[in-house]
Amino acid sequence: MRIGLLNIGDELLLGKTLNTNAFDLAGWLGELGHELVFTLAIEDREDVIAGVLRDVMAGVAGIGALPRCEKLLLTGGLGPTRDDLTRGAVAGFLDVPLEYNSEAEGWLAERLGVKPEAISESQRQQLYVPRGTLPLRNPAGSACGFSFELNGVSLFAFPGVPSEFRAMFDLHCRPSWQRGDAVLMRKRIFTFGLAESRQRELLRGFATPEPFRFSSLPSESGVAIALEAFVANAEVETQKVLLESAWKELLSLLPAESIVDLGGATLPQTVFHLLRERDATVSVAESCTAGAVGYLLTEIPGSSQTFKQGYLTYANEAKTLLLGVKEDLLKSRGAVSEAVALAMANGCREAANTDYAVAITGIAGPEGGTPEKPVGLVYIAVCSQKGAEVRRFQFRGDRKSIRWSSAYAALNQLRLFIINDLRKV
Amino acid sequence: MRIGLLNIGDELLLGKTLNTNAFDLAGWLGELGHELVFTLAIEDREDVIAGVLRDVMAGVAGIGALPRCEKLLLTGGLGPTRDDLTRGAVAGFLDVPLEYNSEAEGWLAERLGVKPEAISESQRQQLYVPRGTLPLRNPAGSACGFSFELNGVSLFAFPGVPSEFRAMFDLHCRPSWQRGDAVLMRKRIFTFGLAESRQRELLRGFATPEPFRFSSLPSESGVAIALEAFVANAEVETQKVLLESAWKELLSLLPAESIVDLGGATLPQTVFHLLRERDATVSVAESCTAGAVGYLLTEIPGSSQTFKQGYLTYANEAKTLLLGVKEDLLKSRGAVSEAVALAMANGCREAANTDYAVAITGIAGPEGGTPEKPVGLVYIAVCSQKGAEVRRFQFRGDRKSIRWSSAYAALNQLRLFIINDLRKV
Repeated sequence: MRIGLLNIGDELLLGKTLNTNAFDLAGWLGELGHELVFTLAIEDREDVIAGVLRDVMAGVAGIGALPRCEKLLLTGGLGPTRDDLTRGAVAGFLDVPLEYNSEAEGWLAERLGVKPEAISESQRQQLYVPRGTLPLRNPAGSACGFSFELNGVSLFAFPGVPSEFRAMFDLHCRPSWQRGDAVLMRKRIFTFGLAESRQRELLRGFATPEPFRFSSLPSESGVAIALEAFVANAEVETQKVLLESAWKELLSLLPAESIVDLGGATLPQTVFHLLRERDATVSVAESCTAGAVGYLLTEIPGSSQTFKQGYLTYANEAKTLLLGVKEDLLKSRGAVSEAVALAMANGCREAANTDYAVAITGIAGPEGGTPEKPVGLVYIAVCSQKGAEVRRFQFRGDRKSIRWSSAYAALNQLRLFIINDLRKV
Repeated sequence: MRIGLLNIGDELLLGKTLNTNAFDLAGWLGELGHELVFTLAIEDREDVIAGVLRDVMAGVAGIGALPRCEKLLLTGGLGPTRDDLTRGAVAGFLDVPLEYNSEAEGWLAERLGVKPEAISESQRQQLYVPRGTLPLRNPAGSACGFSFELNGVSLFAFPGVPSEFRAMFDLHCRPSWQRGDAVLMRKRIFTFGLAESRQRELLRGFATPEPFRFSSLPSESGVAIALEAFVANAEVETQKVLLESAWKELLSLLPAESIVDLGGATLPQTVFHLLRERDATVSVAESCTAGAVGYLLTEIPGSSQTFKQGYLTYANEAKTLLLGVKEDLLKSRGAVSEAVALAMANGCREAANTDYAVAITGIAGPEGGTPEKPVGLVYIAVCSQKGAEVRRFQFRGDRKSIRWSSAYAALNQLRLFIINDLRKV
């Protein structure tokens, strides 16, 4: 199925909020094997809404500006304020009046645990639907939705609040949009520490076999690389052979160390699993990140088995007091140095009595940089009983980006250290 | 000016990436006093791209589906891969051939610091523009952009990589899009801890005066409330009086404690300023958030003046060892309890020797909840030399949302504690 998304509301056009509904919907449809063919955000204006509906639902193939679709999800503008014009705009487009819906009133009373008479005036305004359309229950909020079909296009109007949008999609779309005829076949890994230009070079000779699609998406937590396609049930066995062989070839072109996990786990998941497999524990000593590494090491439920404690040693005195870093060393080398990162890691492991320790010290900026030690310079040290390793990084970007890039780099360094540590035994 | 944004590329429709370009552009245009009238994301397909261009640039008012605009920004699809069809699609729409542009070649050679002959084949593919259009220099990447005008609509084609999109906008749009005739007048604050429904009730009687626009946008870091408008230079003085008076009335309707800062600062900024004003320091002891509070307390450059150190005490033993929380107390009350939060805060302040300390302990889930202590239960304690205060919270949402909501709530509690602490003196 081809599906379009129409977001109604000024907040997306005023830069007040990121369009997470578009992002979420795209992901859900991908999993269900349907195609999102456009997402359009427009102002809360009746004439603009009606113009788009005419284009999408006109019923004449080939004349519209927007790609054709069988389902149109319309979100936003269903609330109680004067800006919320979606109900009226759709009624105007259909040339029918708005009607108070007593079924929706019953749902809301039930949800609130009150008698229908107790529903407030502002809540009542959210219980009107265009005459002849189907009211849709909202399990997560007070604004009711509605649905109708015209010229082969089904429209679903849902609230724009992300939690309500999700709840309505799950209730009214997901169950009937399951495909019995095909399944999503997907292979995915994350890489870390491999520059995009280098990756492109390495994969130059790789040809993605039909019907699969190659994707590569970078973020601070690594690059997600995938091969995927929706495949008809009857073809799954054949395509499986093709996918396995293409995937094997793709993986062989990438440096083994850059692959976070062959099973597709994220960096926090992988570190957690590596520690669990070894029944090992980790502690952290953070300066410039001041908590981001600890936060990531506890992102996975059950992290209390692997993460015991950590030290946020932002001030030099804290590095001395909590980790035993010598004052002389801090003076002679500076807080942002290889030697201090190593001393922090060793001191942390000793104080916390863990198998591994990670330490991080750097200049997050925007102030505090010098020609010798510029903003973005970060040292990360990892140690265990068997030894220690320190690496120097030069990150780019603003303070926030430098801090999160550093934190993920620390997890990756811990990952590699654990793997190599094992090999030495 | 009315501006439209057309995003070309499958990654937005496949749920691989959030549309941050749309969000960023909306913010920039708001600051410049222009109106973003739509944002549309479509697939990388020549016929779809051409269909939208026909609609937007047809030159006949009133027949298009999309809102009319004077400028159309087109992003994405300018790269070197087979998916990148934007150059060809625009050339097809204009019915002209693509031409290799030697001026763009010169820019790229200069940027890379190489001779033109050294430019690779894949980079060369990004230097073609439709005949008759103006090539646009890309200061942040290798794909060149282009521009042309048709029927009163100017089109700017920029790469979709956010850093390149931003650099191109700053170079080719921002300087000439400055308005000399009007300025943005804006008042903004953040509130924290005030439920949206309660806020709506409190502001029911408030009427936003023309030409100002009221907005209220919730997030984990608080609700941003604003009144804003673009005002002609000649009217600024008159409108200033109106805005000041409306703003004063709006503020008077909100509980003073819920207003993070009258000057509009964020929660991390406000806490930083409150501490700086008092020449005071703070330390943290974190259990369930494991670093998120420390991270937020050091978000502001210069935080080393106020934040000295912190303890990530995830394990019970760490709470005892580092903060002196008695084992008996942990056994009798449990780690997630008022008494333990208080003991953590007091122990933290003593160990770190700071003016204030914040402690947080809770159940982030999704496992570990019980009927008495459900997932989302969090205790936050703040203390100073003068005393301590603990509060109980029950957050909703997933693990990530519970952890960040807790961290921001801790900052807010610290803010209120500092303010009230002062009043007591």
